[in-house]
Order: sequence, then structure tokens, then C-alpha cells
Amino acid sequence: MQHGDIMELKDYMNKLFYPKSIAIIEASEKIPWYIRGIIERGFEGELYLVSKEKKLFGIECYNDISELPDNIDFTIIVINKRRLLDIIKKCIQKNFQTLHIFSAGLGEYDDYGAEIEQKLHDLLKNSNTRAIGPNCMGIYSTGGKISYSPYFSTKICEKSCVSFVSHSGDLTTRYVIKENEYGVNFSTVASIGNSVDLNFTDFINYFNENEKTEIIAGYFEGFSKYYKSEGRYLLKILKNLKKPALILRGGVSEQGKRAVSSHTGTIASDSKIWDSIFKQTPAIKINTYEELIDSTIAFYYCKNICPTVKSILLITWSGGKAVLGVDRIVKLGIDVPKIQEPTRSKLQSMISIGSILNPLDLPWIGRKEKFFEICKIAIDEPYIGGIIFETFAPLEFDKGYEIYYNNIIRIFKYANSVKKPFLISLPYFNVIQREKLKNKFVKDSVPIFPSIERAAKAFLNLYNYQKKQSFYSKS
Amino acid sequence: MQHGDIMELKDYMNKLFYPKSIAIIEASEKIPWYIRGIIERGFEGELYLVSKEKKLFGIECYNDISELPDNIDFTIIVINKRRLLDIIKKCIQKNFQTLHIFSAGLGEYDDYGAEIEQKLHDLLKNSNTRAIGPNCMGIYSTGGKISYSPYFSTKICEKSCVSFVSHSGDLTTRYVIKENEYGVNFSTVASIGNSVDLNFTDFINYFNENEKTEIIAGYFEGFSKYYKSEGRYLLKILKNLKKPALILRGGVSEQGKRAVSSHTGTIASDSKIWDSIFKQTPAIKINTYEELIDSTIAFYYCKNICPTVKSILLITWSGGKAVLGVDRIVKLGIDVPKIQEPTRSKLQSMISIGSILNPLDLPWIGRKEKFFEICKIAIDEPYIGGIIFETFAPLEFDKGYEIYYNNIIRIFKYANSVKKPFLISLPYFNVIQREKLKNKFVKDSVPIFPSIERAAKAFLNLYNYQKKQSFYSKS
Repeated sequence: MQHGDIMELKDYMNKLFYPKSIAIIEASEKIPWYIRGIIERGFEGELYLVSKEKKLFGIECYNDISELPDNIDFTIIVINKRRLLDIIKKCIQKNFQTLHIFSAGLGEYDDYGAEIEQKLHDLLKNSNTRAIGPNCMGIYSTGGKISYSPYFSTKICEKSCVSFVSHSGDLTTRYVIKENEYGVNFSTVASIGNSVDLNFTDFINYFNENEKTEIIAGYFEGFSKYYKSEGRYLLKILKNLKKPALILRGGVSEQGKRAVSSHTGTIASDSKIWDSIFKQTPAIKINTYEELIDSTIAFYYCKNICPTVKSILLITWSGGKAVLGVDRIVKLGIDVPKIQEPTRSKLQSMISIGSILNPLDLPWIGRKEKFFEICKIAIDEPYIGGIIFETFAPLEFDKGYEIYYNNIIRIFKYANSVKKPFLISLPYFNVIQREKLKNKFVKDSVPIFPSIERAAKAFLNLYNYQKKQSFYSKS
Repeated sequence: MQHGDIMELKDYMNKLFYPKSIAIIEASEKIPWYIRGIIERGFEGELYLVSKEKKLFGIECYNDISELPDNIDFTIIVINKRRLLDIIKKCIQKNFQTLHIFSAGLGEYDDYGAEIEQKLHDLLKNSNTRAIGPNCMGIYSTGGKISYSPYFSTKICEKSCVSFVSHSGDLTTRYVIKENEYGVNFSTVASIGNSVDLNFTDFINYFNENEKTEIIAGYFEGFSKYYKSEGRYLLKILKNLKKPALILRGGVSEQGKRAVSSHTGTIASDSKIWDSIFKQTPAIKINTYEELIDSTIAFYYCKNICPTVKSILLITWSGGKAVLGVDRIVKLGIDVPKIQEPTRSKLQSMISIGSILNPLDLPWIGRKEKFFEICKIAIDEPYIGGIIFETFAPLEFDKGYEIYYNNIIRIFKYANSVKKPFLISLPYFNVIQREKLKNKFVKDSVPIFPSIERAAKAFLNLYNYQKKQSFYSKS
């Protein structure tokens, strides 16, 4: 939309994410996910289905949009692009507040689609109706009890909530489910596609002002072609960030830009614009999909324990993987400092095999009280910024393993108590058992990553955020 | 050993990997894996256990090494370092052929350990007995029917066999199990630890000459401190490589070198030496543990279909992940070329939604004959070097999925028939189902990777090997 009044934007966004009335045009057995995603989580407002069917999922359907009441808060539109303009006109006439336009094959596909899309934009621009899409999956709002997918968590997020805006629908789906699997909860999520009306920056703006959002995440492909100044608008919003914002950008390479143009038809932007955004604002640059997954987990669990020292204490039980892990951490510009005297001698006197120099390689004492003591002493060293602990799932979750597990949890809690992030590297190895152990850690709110390197990249983003934050709070 | 006669080396190595007689000193209930790793796979030679027990796993034990016959081919020594020199002397006196010294806490631990290790070296040097270790896990030989771990595949490898030598024991274990899970089989594997006698290069030399090895892989931490010229020896062997050799090096950073010295006590080497090794020889530089896993899989399945063009056709069903995938592939220096005319128009006429430009993003036609046809035409383009196909496991393996799966297998077989590697990216998402689908692909000999980027790195190594190979065959 035009980058106007934040109060006006909030008003529309609240109707999108927390509607009191919803319509689906046209509901059918073919799109069960929208209907299920609403009724299965106990949406308490009015739900209107316009459909060729008489009844769907036990709900009486309407024949035509004209039979619906005016002023519906949120309407999902799933129709062929040929009939789209006609339906949108009707929605505007009935003063529907917000729309999600699912229909694809528009600006991203061919000239005919682009023509329809332009007309769509013109209609919306001159109306009081706001829309996301076309070519997108839509909305997930835990507090609003609506979800475009029945597979997203039904838990209403109340603390550390993440909000996500994305140009890609499938990526949104995979990201949300993955985060849910790692215990991360969302307040509001929007897959916005070609951004014919509401754009990426509108959502960042809303998330930044919304108290239910504590962490902002975004997948960006390009600025809306309908608002030439979206770049400046985004820069302005990000300069005034009140919380962490993790932004992954697709279409960095020339070949990637080509893929963007046939995906969302947005204008893949120049890296120079983004370089200056990341330089001038506290927004965190995310380089890959995997880094987005991992950094969201890290910020979710370590939001208030951002490291002030760029160094890692590595704890493993594998000499070779420790050596390689150190190489990867150092390659990222993070130190793995040697434990210094007098602590070194003290720790050395406590073991008869293994190494306490950093990495800590302490075979055979994982179940002992001494293991906790050694880790605690090393964590306390002032030149240690955070901890990466690599472990593997056992063949059996027996009593012996429980003792080892509890030792890890004690070390984790101790590290958090002294404000040092504790990240677990749990590689995919024996994946069925790995899944069980992952779930156990998630219950204990431990952040999990699939490798030392990926944990280290997440740590680096925590560190960078802390550094940027202290810079912007001083300046 | 001294870098002597290849025939002499072969003779010792054959006794290590294909012994006719084995002794374990000292066998106990505490080290069941060595005994199980031998008896459970039907080792047909003589097995002698020296133990405090009378009987272990149904085998009568000997009280003392003096009761054993002379000239035993392969002996595993699991004793405290304080008694090590005494036992080694006895082994030499009895003319035991090869030893695996498991004992740790030597050169990698403290001055006392280093002193024992030096004496160990002197004893062996002046003997006819050859040894691996100390501080290592030992030998896995499918043809020899011996394994230091009962969890390694019992399948005797007969084609495309991989041989692996490694300074790290735990890393070897994880690597072999992981490769087995992806259908990769080994002929011979050695975890060699501190390399007091036989060193890393001896194994590379043997693997290069051995017909049962078709792919060489190695994890290297440092040159043996007992043979100052191992670097030159390695360079000489690698200059005459007869097969792919994938080499991962640990201890690249200063902090990593420190970790090496407390891990295997080898001399972590200068990056300059390795830069020239990789420049002057066809050996493939592997940068991370993950890349070692992936490249082994790629070479195992695509050994004879190395790409001659450095470009990828990307096939996905997710616009956002396609855009990001392209960015990562291009970042690696691999092209993702646009499909050219007249093929572009031909393919465009075959679809009504999606994209055929590259990436191919073809929603909703995966089960159709047309999907195979479009992919086939794109694969045939001369500027396409290989294919990365990203897919996900279904919620249910129903009939509809089977049709889609068979379409993928047809495309895979077609690509291989025209000598273009076909690599599947199957991210860890819904991991239980992912495991089932992975196993299904493995049965059909399809190489699997956890991300587009990791598949692309494996592709790059296939391409680089082909390029180096044609360079060295010309020069």
C-alpha cells in the first residue's frame, strides 16, 4: 500500500491477522487446507464459504458473493485468473477489508497475466480494500486462530514470538514447520507473493510496531514493481528497528534474478542497495535458507543472552570432528581461544586422558560430576563468548544416558545463567534416534543445530546483533 | 614405514587387511566390538584371544602371549600404555606380522606418553613387524571379514569400492556408517592414529596400487613426526594417481593445529604444502566433513559419468528454494544457464503454468508423462553438465506417489545414459518419511544429498576430477 499512516496500516493488518469474519471464495474439496486451517484451530468468528457445493466440512455454503454481508474482515480468493478482476470488483463494492489472492499465473507468468495484475493493482489502489498476493499461500496467525496450513502449530504464541513475511509460499511452509519442530513458535506469518498491494516492507513495519512480535524474519525476492520507493521505505523502517530482524534475500546472482522474475515477478534488487541496508541498519543479513532456520532458533532461545565476546568454547567427544569444527569456526572469524593459566593447570590436574585446552575433548567422563565442574570452570573464563557442544544420539536411552543428558542440561543452564549462549550441534546420524533426542532437547528449550559450523554461524549472528545494538543505542 | 619397496608394502598391507590369523591382546568383555566385529562376519582364519578370562564369546582364551604360535598375521593390542613396550617386544620376538595398537595417552597426551611412543617407534623400525597406531580404532576390511565395529556393513564390496585412511577414529566410524546408510561400500578402511610406523601415505600408496580400491578417501591431520620426508613421499604418490582421491585436511587454522597436537600428536602441516599438492596432482581437495560425505557418494555413483560442462539444470517444486538454490550454485562458480531457443519455445508450448527457463519449476505435472518429456529435452541441451533435482518425502507412499517416483527414476536413468550426473537434493524435512524415501532411492542407486548447495559441491568435485584427469592424461 502507499507508505502512509502506521495507524491505518495497523488497522488493516489487525484485520488480516485477527479477523472477526472470514470468507473463502471459492471453497471446494480441492482446497481443504484453508478450511481445515481455520475450523480445526477453533476460529471463533464468522466463517462464510462461497462454493458450488451446498455443504463443506459441515458448513452451509453460499452460492454467490452477493449473498454475503458487507465489511468482511478477511477474504481468501481461490479462483482462476480470468475471473479475478470481476470478483475483486465485487469485494471492493462490498467493502471487504482485506483479501488474500491465491490465484497464480499473473505477473510472474506472461504478458496476459501481467496485464490482469496491473488492473488488479489499479482497482485496489483506488479502494478501501487491502490485499496480499496474488500467487501466494496467505496467512498464519496463532492468536487469530487462522492458518493456511493445517500442519502448523496450533499453540498460541505468547513469548519470544517470531513473525515472518515471505515472497515464497512453499519456502514459508517448510520454514514454519521446521521451526515448529524445533520448538519455535510464531505470532504472525504472511506469504505475500507478487505484492500487488501490501508489500514486504508494510509487514516489516507492522511487525516492528507489534508487541506480539519479538523477532522479525523475512524472505525477500524483490521490491514491488507498483511502488517505486519501497527501497527507501524499507531503509527508513529498518533504521528504527526495535527488535532483531533476520533477512534472507533470494536473487543475489544474475541467474537467481531470472528465477525471481518467473517466480514472483518482483524487481530483484541490486546487491548495493542491500549492502547499504545491512550497513546502515541493525538488520541481520542471512545468507542461506539453512542460516535462516538456524538463526531463528538461536534468537528464539538466546534472545536475551547475546554474546559480547566473539569466541567459542567447543566441547566434543570426537578428536577429528573437534579439529574440523575448530577450522570451520575460525574460518568464520570466531576465535577458539586456548584455556589460559592458571585455569589450564587446574583443569589438567582434574583429568587423566583427553584434552582441556579448548576444544574440551573429555572421553569417558561425560556422566561424572567432574564433567560438569570442568565445563563450568571453562565457561566462566572471561574470554569465552559462547559454547558449542557436539553430541550424538545413543543407541538406547537407558539410565546411563539419562545421567549424561542431565549433565548436559546442567551445563546448558549454567551457561545461560552467566549470559553465554549454549548451542548444541546434533548431526544427522542414526536419524531416528537423533529425532528422539532432538525432541527431548526441545522440551528442555535447548537450541539444536545439525553441525558445528551451522551452530557457529547462528552464534555469529547473535554476536553481530549485540554489536549492532550497542552501536545504535550509543549513536 | 620407510618408503621402500611397494611389493614389501603390499605384502604387509595384505596381512593387515586380509589376515589368515588374528590375535587380540588383551581381549575382555569391555571391548566386545573387536571380537564381535570379527566373529560376526564369519572370519575364516585362526582367531586367538589372550585374556584374563577363560572363555569369551564361546572362544577358549590364552593366558599369555607366549602360548600363541609365531608369525600371526594381524594382532590387536588393547593394553595400558605402561605395559605397551613389553608386549610389543614379545610380538616382535614372535615375528608377528602386523599390529594394531589401540592404546592411547601417548604422543598426543604428555611427555611421558611421547617418550613411550618414541621407544615404540625405535623398536618397530628395527624389526620385521609393521604397526598402525597407537591411539586408533584399527581396521575394517570387507573382503578380509574383519571390522573394528560390528555396525559396519558386512557386504563384501566388489565394485566401485571405496578405501579410506584416517587419523581420527571416531570420524572414521561416523563416516563409514553414514556412507553405508547411503549405499556406499568399502573394500578397506584404516584408522591409524598417531602413525608411529605405517603412515597416511603408505595407505594412499597401497590403495592406489590395489585393484579392490576404485575410490580413495582420506582424512589427514599431519605428517608422521617419525618420517621427515612424508610430504615428498605423498606428493610423489599423488602425482601418479590412478583413481579419484578425495582428501580432507584437519588443522588448517592455527587453533585447529593446536587441536591436532592434542589429538594425534602428528605435525599439522602448512597450507602451502597442501596448496601445491592439490595444484600439482589430480587429488581432490575436500574442505569439510560434509563435503567428504557427499563427494564420496557422488564418486561412488557417478564415477564413470563425470561432467565435462560446469553447469547445472535445476529441477524443483518450490519457487523460493529454486531462487536460493540458483544463488548458491552460482556462488560456487557453476552456471545455471537459461534454456535456449528453439528448445525454450518448444518447452513453453508444453506447459500452462510454472517455468521451463532453468530452474524447471513444474508444479502439478510431476506424475505426467510430459514431466519426463520436458526434463529429457532440457537434459539433452549441450550446455547442461549435470542435474540437481530437489524433492521431498510425501506424507504417504501411496499409488500417486509411486507414479511420481517412477518418473524421477526414469529421468535419473535417462541422464545417466547420456553421461550427465543426476543428483537428488532431499532436505531433512519430516525426517522419518525422509529416511524411508532415502532408503528407496538408495535401492535404486540414486545419489542423495541434504541440500542443493551440498549436491552442487559434490558436482563441482566430479567436474574438477574430470578436468584434472584430462589435463594429466594430456600432459
